[in-house]
Formats: sequence, structure tokens, C-alpha cells
Amino acid sequence: MDTSVPGRPETKLQARILTRLRDAGPRSRIELVDHFEVSRTTMGAELGRLTAMGLIAEIGPAASRGGRRSTVIDIAGDIRFVAIAVDTGAVSVAITDGRLRIVAFERTECDVRQGPEPVLELAAERARGLLAKAGVDRPLGVGVGVPCPVDFRRGITVATPVMPGWDGYPVRDLLGRWFECPVVLDNDVNVMALGEQHAGAARTVENFLFVKIGAGVGCGIVAKGELYRGMDGCAGDIGHIQVADSDAVCACGNSGCLEATFGGEALARDALEAVRSGRSPMLGELLERDGTLNAAAVAEAVAAGDATSLQLVRTGGRRVGEVLSGLVSFFNPSLIVLGGGLAVLGHVLLAEIRSVIYRRSLPLATKNLPIVLSDVGEHAAVIGAARLVSDEAYGVPR
Amino acid sequence: MDTSVPGRPETKLQARILTRLRDAGPRSRIELVDHFEVSRTTMGAELGRLTAMGLIAEIGPAASRGGRRSTVIDIAGDIRFVAIAVDTGAVSVAITDGRLRIVAFERTECDVRQGPEPVLELAAERARGLLAKAGVDRPLGVGVGVPCPVDFRRGITVATPVMPGWDGYPVRDLLGRWFECPVVLDNDVNVMALGEQHAGAARTVENFLFVKIGAGVGCGIVAKGELYRGMDGCAGDIGHIQVADSDAVCACGNSGCLEATFGGEALARDALEAVRSGRSPMLGELLERDGTLNAAAVAEAVAAGDATSLQLVRTGGRRVGEVLSGLVSFFNPSLIVLGGGLAVLGHVLLAEIRSVIYRRSLPLATKNLPIVLSDVGEHAAVIGAARLVSDEAYGVPR
Repeated sequence: MDTSVPGRPETKLQARILTRLRDAGPRSRIELVDHFEVSRTTMGAELGRLTAMGLIAEIGPAASRGGRRSTVIDIAGDIRFVAIAVDTGAVSVAITDGRLRIVAFERTECDVRQGPEPVLELAAERARGLLAKAGVDRPLGVGVGVPCPVDFRRGITVATPVMPGWDGYPVRDLLGRWFECPVVLDNDVNVMALGEQHAGAARTVENFLFVKIGAGVGCGIVAKGELYRGMDGCAGDIGHIQVADSDAVCACGNSGCLEATFGGEALARDALEAVRSGRSPMLGELLERDGTLNAAAVAEAVAAGDATSLQLVRTGGRRVGEVLSGLVSFFNPSLIVLGGGLAVLGHVLLAEIRSVIYRRSLPLATKNLPIVLSDVGEHAAVIGAARLVSDEAYGVPR
Repeated sequence: MDTSVPGRPETKLQARILTRLRDAGPRSRIELVDHFEVSRTTMGAELGRLTAMGLIAEIGPAASRGGRRSTVIDIAGDIRFVAIAVDTGAVSVAITDGRLRIVAFERTECDVRQGPEPVLELAAERARGLLAKAGVDRPLGVGVGVPCPVDFRRGITVATPVMPGWDGYPVRDLLGRWFECPVVLDNDVNVMALGEQHAGAARTVENFLFVKIGAGVGCGIVAKGELYRGMDGCAGDIGHIQVADSDAVCACGNSGCLEATFGGEALARDALEAVRSGRSPMLGELLERDGTLNAAAVAEAVAAGDATSLQLVRTGGRRVGEVLSGLVSFFNPSLIVLGGGLAVLGHVLLAEIRSVIYRRSLPLATKNLPIVLSDVGEHAAVIGAARLVSDEAYGVPR
């Protein structure tokens, strides 16, 4: 494989050509001329420069439309991105091609609370292994998703009580030195939303919400086809929206926050409490068997007919639904995708969330609103992380 | 004045040149070349076509930057837009120039419940009068804001219980026939948000919320510099978000909706109730004096030290603040602008809203978040309506 490093796009049009090829697949020269409303000369010059940079390649003749034959252009076949998705309990690493198709994937258990160095070293080691196996010297970029707030412009992680040691850590610069290429860092919810947009149910919609119910609750927002981060990059922080009937104290210092009442942490707490108070002998058996109680255990108990577990899931779903129904009125999305660890609770949770949203929101906003579980699953975060850094590598203006 | 009708832009670049001149003011040819990263030849050709269409004009030489002198370009001085802002109790009509500066303005009291024909006929009559006085044969476009939901793509008004006769009314097509030019219709909250973006506190920010507290409560959303309407055009419908401690029945059929607990209608209802129950002799005097109670009367009572009125405003402000604090967590805006009839309650209302938002939202989302009253006031809607139709006339892709 050629070891020369591709160049960086210089114009907005070059960036738009590259992202068009990435998202829509190979296109003929004529189709690109028509799509971007530029002259053949301008398009020819831009494609020439992108070819010289090693970013695109001709892959064959186009079907004839009469007149001179056009050629089909694709992203260069040897381009590779590294995608790293850090979760609270594991690190996923993928290698993708220039159109973000996964060519290698590896998931390793790993506790994020160890702090950034061991986690990032593990991720980098796995990435180097996958790159070496694929014969790639240097990726075109590294995209990273982490389960905590991020200062997107500076590429650093931001304080969170549950991840000691990560506050202000220069993830972007460190990985940039290690891999000698552009690195882009964002929070896990945003990269998962991008993954859903690129490869999931959200592929065909312009405005959607990706709701992650994991240890906490967060939301990725795509408006008019683009990720919306808000002023400080903390848009979608819905875990701290207040729910109506709760005084549960939250790690943020307020009470009644959504994620203090439902989410992986809250569900584990409530399941333990149900065992201690004797309300669920079945959860008690599962606790004895596994030594701990998590969402999967609650899902198992629900499937086995445990009424207390069913009630925990329904109450949680109702609270998520109440918050989301307000957001549906505000944002009028075309789609809501649910993902994260608590997606294991499946259709029981989904049905409760749906019923609250359909009941509480105005008919105009919900008449065409699908609310679905993610079908990209564990790949959403790495595909989204690759997409994020591909924007950078393809010269998309921030 | 030249009576020929200007042409319609044909390319995206032409649209971008026109909106750049509209929003940033006159620019030299060289500045436009630099800004849009195109060749002098391309820019020269586009400016030539826009000049031939009568949409732009040279207004003088640019300050020298060394080398050949550049010329300064502006939107053609004879371009005029008509802007119509229908409110529940009045119709405002303005004529603006091509940069949306108001050259004539007239506000006429008028009850929207008469139905669309008399209201629109009155608006058109006023507009024709102002156009004739200015010697304008035909405007380049007519922008319209109405206080009800709108099907933006079809240019029709949508059912609302408080505006009988407006359901499905073809406002756009009717006015298009009357004025023989493009017409764009949107709801009042969206056009007010656009007015704030063009001429108000929101001029310099990319992401903000305009919250109108009038008879009801609604919100205009600007994300990344553009109005966000959502899938069905009903984004920002925050009047029907549920508040925590209310079971007030709403016109929509649900209970506990924000606008069932606060807004012009709800405040008038609660003020009357305070009189009937004897809790506010001062409101009783104002009712006797005016024959009715509205927000202005409550403001007057607050200013005079009436504790019951103060409590009504504070309770209302708290409820608005609770809903907005959730939206701040979700949307992470750079600015919130408050407008509409209840802005007459001024800083008492604003202080309560601010205090709830600053207390309830996370520090990261509020550390730089100004929450202000509109300083564009009654002009916001007409400036925004003009801006809306100028996008259409200047060829901005929808």
C-alpha cells in the first residue's frame, strides 16, 4: 500500500465534493457538475487537485447519458480512519475506509475510572494492532468519543464526578502526537448520533434526536442534517432536566434530575432497594447469582414476569417520556432513536416512552414521529467518531 | 422611480452575495472575492448579472488597499419589501428597503377573530397606501407573520381554536395574486425571532431562543444562524409543555400546559379570580376603571405595590423559567430574548425567569447566557417578515 500521506483540501468546494462522495457513494463527473452547479472546467480542476492529493480516484466509466462518456469518482480506496469509542466499561476501536465502512473492529473491557492514560494507551495499542494488520502506516485521522462532557474546540475532556482524572485532559493533542494526524474529540452521545445519521435509521431524516440511556441519560441533536452542539458544546444534556414527581438527589447538586431517577445508576439503586425491602425475591436471586444488579438483570426479571421489575422499567420509561414529550413540542423532530445500555430493556421501555410522548405531545408534532431502538447498536459510536474526523480530514469548515 | 421588476437570482452564489450585502451592508468587489473564495472573473460575472437584473448597484469607489481600486456594491436602492405582521389585536404593515431598513410603518387595531378576509384586506389596503406614497409600483416580495400555526411549505394557516375561519386559509396565494410578487408566510414567533436576529440583541449570536409571551406562549428557534422549524413547522410550540404543579385545563385538551397556567389569557383569568375572591382590591379598582383586566393592568398593580399581582407575575415567571431551564439544558443557547405582550410586566417577570433558569440549569450552560427583554419591540415582527421574504426574493435555497 502507498505510504505517502494524502493532502488536505484547500477549498469549500473540495470539502463538499469529498463529503458528497462519502455520504452518497461514487458519482460521475457529470453528476458532480450538476449537483454543485459549477462549470466543467472548475469541477475538472478541483477533481484534478483532489486526485493529486491522493484523496479521490477514478473507478471506471459512467453509464452513458449520450455525448461524451463521464467517469465515476470515488474516495481513494486506501484511505483509513481510526475510530475510538470509550464507554464506561469498554473501549471499542475500529478502522474504516474513506466512506466510513468498518474494515476492522475490536472491543475490549476496560474501566474508564482508571483515568485517561491507561484507557487511551489501551485504545492506541489496539488501533496500532489493527492498522498493522491492515498494512496501514498512518490513518488520515482519528475520531474519538468519550462518555463525559468535552470542550470540543480545545479537544479536552471536562470535569465529571464519575470520571476522576479526566478533567481538562488533552485527549486530542495526545493522540495527535501518537498518530501524527488530525484527531477530533466529542462526547459519546454526539458521535452515536452521527453514527445513526450515517448508517442507521436516521440516514434519511434531517432533524432527529438520539437518546442514550446508559449509566446516565444524554441526547445527540441533529438539526438540518448537522450535529447541533450549542454554544458551549453541552447541548443535549437532558439528564439534568427536572422530572415532575421526584426529589431524588442528583450528582449535579440539584434534585429531581431525570438521570437521578432513571438510567443505569438509578435503576441499579432502585433494583437493590427492591431486594432489600423484600419487594422482589426474583431480583434477590439474580443478585445472589451475579453478585451485582444491572439493567440486564432487570430485563431478565421482566422477561420472567417479575412485577416489581416491570414497574421499575415502566416508571423509568414514563419519566423519560415526559422529558422527551417536552422536547418533541420544542424541537419537532422527524425521528427519535433510543440507544445505550438500557436499550437492553427493549420494547417494554420503548412502549412506555412512546405512550407518554404520543399522549402528551400535540398531534401535529407526533403524527409522523417514529420512536425506535437503534439498529446500528455497538457500531454507532465508532462510525460516528470516524465521520466526525472525516469532516476534519475532508476540510469541512467547522 | 424605475418601474421595471428586478429579476430572480439564478445561482447559489448570487443568493449568497445578496444576503451578504443585506446582512453585512455594502462590500467592495475585492471583499466579496475574498469572502466567497471565488475568482475575480467568476465574481465579476455574477455581479454583472445581478446588476443587469436590477438587484445590486455600484455605490462608489472602495478605500484603496494598493493596486487597482475596487468598487463598493450595495443592494439596489429602489428595492422595496412589504412586511405584514398580524397580531391578535392589530395589524402592523411596513415597507422596507432591500437591506430591511423600515421606510414606512403603520399599525392599525383589528380583531383577528373577524377571520382572514377582513384582516388581510385591511393589511393590503394599508400596504397599498404606503407603497403609493413611496411611489413604488410593485414590491419585490411580501412577508407575512400570523399568530397561529402555519403550513410553511403550502403557505396556509392551520387550525387554532382561538382563530375561527383561519384553518387552511391560502394566505400566500391570495396575497400573491393581489401584489403579483412572491409571498412568504410564517407564524408570528418565527418572524419575531428573525427580526431579533436581523436588528436586535441576537444580531451577533448563532444560537438563540426568542420567547413570545402573549395571549399564549411560543418560541422561535435559531440554530447555527438559521431559523429552525422542525419537521412539520411546529418546532418551538412550548406553550404545551407540561409544568410541574398545575392541573389547569388547556384548549389543546391536555392539562398542565405552560400556556394554560401563564400567558395573557391565563393571567387575565387569574387576575379576575383574584378580584372575585377579594384577594386584590387594587385589581378590582382597575377592573372597574377599564371594564377589563389584562397584563398592562397587572403591571400597573405590581408597580403600585399590590402583593397579589406581584405573586401572580412571580408564579408565572417561575413556570416559564422551569420550562426554559429544561430547554437551556437541551439547546445550550447563547441568548434568550423575551418579547410579546407580557413583556409589559418587565423586570419583575424577567428577574423571576432568570432566577429559575440560573438555579436549575447546569453552570456550563448558563455561565455566559444573557436573558433579556427585546429591544426591537413592535418592529421585530415586520423586520423578520421582510427578512423571510427577502430570502425568497434573493434566491436562498429553502
